[in-house]
Amino acid sequence: MTEKLRVAVIGAGRMGADHIARLHTRIHGAEVAAVVDVDAARAQAAIEGIDGAVALTDAAEALDNGDVNAVLIATPGFLHEDILLSALARDIPILCEKPLTPDAESAWKIVQAEERLGHKRIQVGFMRRFDDEYAALGRIIRDNELGELLMLHHQHRNPETPASFTNEMLINDSVVHEFDAIRFFTGEEITSVQVRLGKATKNAPSGQHDPQHVLIETESGVLADVEIYVNAKFGYEVATQASFEEGVVSIGGDRGPYTRSAGRWGGNITAGFEERFGAAYDTEIQSWVDAALRGEVGGPTAWDGYATAACCEAGVEAQKNGEKVTVRLKAKPALYN
Amino acid sequence: MTEKLRVAVIGAGRMGADHIARLHTRIHGAEVAAVVDVDAARAQAAIEGIDGAVALTDAAEALDNGDVNAVLIATPGFLHEDILLSALARDIPILCEKPLTPDAESAWKIVQAEERLGHKRIQVGFMRRFDDEYAALGRIIRDNELGELLMLHHQHRNPETPASFTNEMLINDSVVHEFDAIRFFTGEEITSVQVRLGKATKNAPSGQHDPQHVLIETESGVLADVEIYVNAKFGYEVATQASFEEGVVSIGGDRGPYTRSAGRWGGNITAGFEERFGAAYDTEIQSWVDAALRGEVGGPTAWDGYATAACCEAGVEAQKNGEKVTVRLKAKPALYN
Amino acid sequence: MTEKLRVAVIGAGRMGADHIARLHTRIHGAEVAAVVDVDAARAQAAIEGIDGAVALTDAAEALDNGDVNAVLIATPGFLHEDILLSALARDIPILCEKPLTPDAESAWKIVQAEERLGHKRIQVGFMRRFDDEYAALGRIIRDNELGELLMLHHQHRNPETPASFTNEMLINDSVVHEFDAIRFFTGEEITSVQVRLGKATKNAPSGQHDPQHVLIETESGVLADVEIYVNAKFGYEVATQASFEEGVVSIGGDRGPYTRSAGRWGGNITAGFEERFGAAYDTEIQSWVDAALRGEVGGPTAWDGYATAACCEAGVEAQKNGEKVTVRLKAKPALYN
Amino acid sequence: MTEKLRVAVIGAGRMGADHIARLHTRIHGAEVAAVVDVDAARAQAAIEGIDGAVALTDAAEALDNGDVNAVLIATPGFLHEDILLSALARDIPILCEKPLTPDAESAWKIVQAEERLGHKRIQVGFMRRFDDEYAALGRIIRDNELGELLMLHHQHRNPETPASFTNEMLINDSVVHEFDAIRFFTGEEITSVQVRLGKATKNAPSGQHDPQHVLIETESGVLADVEIYVNAKFGYEVATQASFEEGVVSIGGDRGPYTRSAGRWGGNITAGFEERFGAAYDTEIQSWVDAALRGEVGGPTAWDGYATAACCEAGVEAQKNGEKVTVRLKAKPALYN
Repeated sequence: MTEKLRVAVIGAGRMGADHIARLHTRIHGAEVAAVVDVDAARAQAAIEGIDGAVALTDAAEALDNGDVNAVLIATPGFLHEDILLSALARDIPILCEKPLTPDAESAWKIVQAEERLGHKRIQVGFMRRFDDEYAALGRIIRDNELGELLMLHHQHRNPETPASFTNEMLINDSVVHEFDAIRFFTGEEITSVQVRLGKATKNAPSGQHDPQHVLIETESGVLADVEIYVNAKFGYEVATQASFEEGVVSIGGDRGPYTRSAGRWGGNITAGFEERFGAAYDTEIQSWVDAALRGEVGGPTAWDGYATAACCEAGVEAQKNGEKVTVRLKAKPALYN
Repeated sequence: MTEKLRVAVIGAGRMGADHIARLHTRIHGAEVAAVVDVDAARAQAAIEGIDGAVALTDAAEALDNGDVNAVLIATPGFLHEDILLSALARDIPILCEKPLTPDAESAWKIVQAEERLGHKRIQVGFMRRFDDEYAALGRIIRDNELGELLMLHHQHRNPETPASFTNEMLINDSVVHEFDAIRFFTGEEITSVQVRLGKATKNAPSGQHDPQHVLIETESGVLADVEIYVNAKFGYEVATQASFEEGVVSIGGDRGPYTRSAGRWGGNITAGFEERFGAAYDTEIQSWVDAALRGEVGGPTAWDGYATAACCEAGVEAQKNGEKVTVRLKAKPALYN
Repeated sequence: MTEKLRVAVIGAGRMGADHIARLHTRIHGAEVAAVVDVDAARAQAAIEGIDGAVALTDAAEALDNGDVNAVLIATPGFLHEDILLSALARDIPILCEKPLTPDAESAWKIVQAEERLGHKRIQVGFMRRFDDEYAALGRIIRDNELGELLMLHHQHRNPETPASFTNEMLINDSVVHEFDAIRFFTGEEITSVQVRLGKATKNAPSGQHDPQHVLIETESGVLADVEIYVNAKFGYEVATQASFEEGVVSIGGDRGPYTRSAGRWGGNITAGFEERFGAAYDTEIQSWVDAALRGEVGGPTAWDGYATAACCEAGVEAQKNGEKVTVRLKAKPALYN
Repeated sequence: MTEKLRVAVIGAGRMGADHIARLHTRIHGAEVAAVVDVDAARAQAAIEGIDGAVALTDAAEALDNGDVNAVLIATPGFLHEDILLSALARDIPILCEKPLTPDAESAWKIVQAEERLGHKRIQVGFMRRFDDEYAALGRIIRDNELGELLMLHHQHRNPETPASFTNEMLINDSVVHEFDAIRFFTGEEITSVQVRLGKATKNAPSGQHDPQHVLIETESGVLADVEIYVNAKFGYEVATQASFEEGVVSIGGDRGPYTRSAGRWGGNITAGFEERFGAAYDTEIQSWVDAALRGEVGGPTAWDGYATAACCEAGVEAQKNGEKVTVRLKAKPALYN
């Protein structure tokens, strides 16, 4: 067993840079050993002030580096598959930002590769599971504190998107978090997805229909709706309300100093996901490191990555036909039970 | 023009008794002239302490009473049609508790009768329109304060139902309030209703599937979902969240003294609709009286009663097939524009 | 016993006009019979639309009017004494806006006059006792729901004052409400008052030190502090927090639609006392009318008026010396036990 | 400059153990080199799993250990003086849990010793300054966002104390936090303290009067009151409300999942200071480490320790006489400007 993870971070964009800072200044038991980015200057900038780290432009080189014994993948999703397979071949701990891969078919290949390896090495970056309130709601559900969970209501609102954010990305990049959250809360697979488009804001980029209404069902019949609204302008908000047999629980409410001024009471809304989920990311990565040092996986697995990819495919189909689309999953390998 | 409404209250049950007390002790410009109930003792008890009021068992007798110049109908819905037609024939102000009638066909007859009369006499008892927060949200929408309204989320939760409360009554007696509220907020007709049943509580009476998920669309595409949950046990809750182009507004939050004790912060939930909407009922009846004294109608009309009845029929059909069911309305008579 | 109060309203200023509208449109069992104001035009304007009411400029004339059988005094405080004595001489129900009179000595004369009359006729207009949340907190205290009450914290903030609002008026016109509230909550007399001036806002009129810190003690040692801040600009706020042996209760929190927009969550603050305590005024006046029709008093008595006047005198003295000043009360007549 | 702090933690009790875990698992740039406790077994237990750390029973031995280059003092306050002087003699970074020393005279000796050393080495453990909401309120004040700060209201409530918690400890161990917080918020020294005892709970240990009311004034006249209530039973609460010229800001409100069940809305209160201020402790220690590695002090200084000790002495005197007691400070050495 290694004493410390020496992590190669692949991708030094917004998420990658965030994880590099996290590993370097807040996470115990891990260090940044290498940063890979096709933009050599960006890779170089990312390792500034990190003793012993190297800047590279090729992921394979990083994985071949004898000083590297773990990998954190923060590139765009379409680049994940090759890196994942290479890292699995080296049998090292992997933290892969969501999505595992962009589609269910390629995700299934990853699952199969890991199954062949015979033990779990991949943790997928669904950080919400590590948020304090998500964890608290998860406990309330598991402990049956208020009886059976019956229904979930989700609001997922971002202030704005880049012009390049397509209609499909509302499902693949945004609702994917709710797919995972619903699976996490219920401990069940999702069986169907319906998407209704409705009235749209004029503030969305051309070609993007925003907001959308997503209605999801799980194996036992729990219904979960999602308002996905990515150009909501007012700020960032991710909230959930859960209805039980004996009560209702809400998470994701507003926080912080409470001010009365100029005829208004209230406070500031969190500006973005880094502020809202910053602590959850720390907890997630620490959980990955701690588990990796024990030879385990400390969060959502490749199976979760595959299952949410299948949900996304159903969601994108549902987006086009407005109907309830069944989610079809392959049999779950024993490795993930 | 009369100086004061001399009201015959038809039906002295829970709602009727409530309205009698309201008219007698809080409403200006109206008095209880007669109370009608098939249970003579109940009618008699209801007029106790009200000088000049008579107790009767027959609605026709009340309408023929020269001392009566207005009628408030608080009987079960299936009895409304005859009384409404008789009252219209006498051309007196009418406050009819919801529903106008139990089905769209009979409601349409009432609309036609009023149209023949040539002026509006019927106000339907959708009291939520008179709740302070409903009114405030209505203003925000009409004034375009936060841009266009895009989506609505409703929670409608009751602590419990009698065993006789059928599956259809979740739509006809409960969601009917949301049908009217959505029409009130958007100023549009509802074009389709979908109902999904999902996982059910064990606390509902036999034969009743509770909760249910209702997804509603309006003419301009506003999507509105409703969690209707009538055996929610924890208390009474009616809440709405509205998403706009420039922000989000929530109404129906919890109120009252804020207590910290025994490891918990919070307060008491309102126990039922009388507590939650008591002030709205007062405002509603006062608005009816004030308008009636001017020869007008001070709230939702027979057309609103008919349109919500059509929504209920679509809702009950949707409840059975799980599909999106189109709401079909006849052409709106000019009287209601 | 009269069937209806025929009320002479003395003073048609802001408070008087408010009570005239209240009596005319919302209160049952009372009517406006006369309005008295030194400004004849103002009196005349106030009775517009009120059948059977007369406009007068002299209070004595109103009290001599055979159609008048009750009086509501809404003139400035320094005019109360004469009217009160005249009304007591006529032995009719009296609602006297606070203060009873401007000082303890004259208030004591009123108490003695009522004592000589042999029964209570005067209700003093401390409306907060009729606010829902005040009443709820009062019940929690009386029922010992959370053990003994130990401490109270009050915030009393107004957006601004006229330039004529003197330093003494912070005590006599504003903190007088807390004096009564503390006596109401504890059921005890106040034994001492301390006032500390501290740092002042630049937004107060010249000669007025704002805010001030008032520290009050009751017979059993309950300590109550008050932030009195009358040029707080942001809006109107009256809030109380009560510490018990087993918990803490807060009342007076913000309400209304909850909005997220432009990076802020929250809502609108009530603009003034009419909005904040409008319902309490209605309840207060209805309680007065109901009790008066039974020959009783339905709220705070002349004794409460006298005791708070004594507190105000101690408060004004304390304002000048910064010390703890003892409140000295005469023996309470048996009439008020 | 050292690359890493090798910290000797003196005292392995509740606070010490907490800091050991913090240094070992969450803080970057520091490691536990030694743990000192008079109870050898407790010291030994505390280093379990920490490679390279030694367990000792004598602070001097730890300071003489060549592997130690920083010290964190978490013993009871009466033991601080000697350790502080020894650590200053060795010129190493010091984090001293509050209080600096138990009285102003000995605290002044520490200030003088540090002044002779010629640079600051001591950071005092007032962790609240590192709480997110304290920091946010501090910023609002410094930036004059709502005009001048005028008044502060503090609630400081603990569920219970050990029987050994004396009356003086309410000031020395509890209100000491508010003394520092008020100095932090205002950037001014405290000039007087008044304590009033009032009505007491029956739930306090014998000899302890609980709650108490503390009224504090700063150089510019800001008045700050504190309810110190250490057997409040319901949970842990530390809250502040600040009144400005243009508004009011509250911090320390309740958080976490919002539940509706069994007729109540609300959530769980934090149980104790570890839960409430856990993140603040992390931030505090990281700030100390980061600054120490730069040869600086990253938080409250020995002067702050001395000044709060002087406030405590005034507070204890005020507790006995119920009067306003002046706080007298020696001239502030230039080192601390």
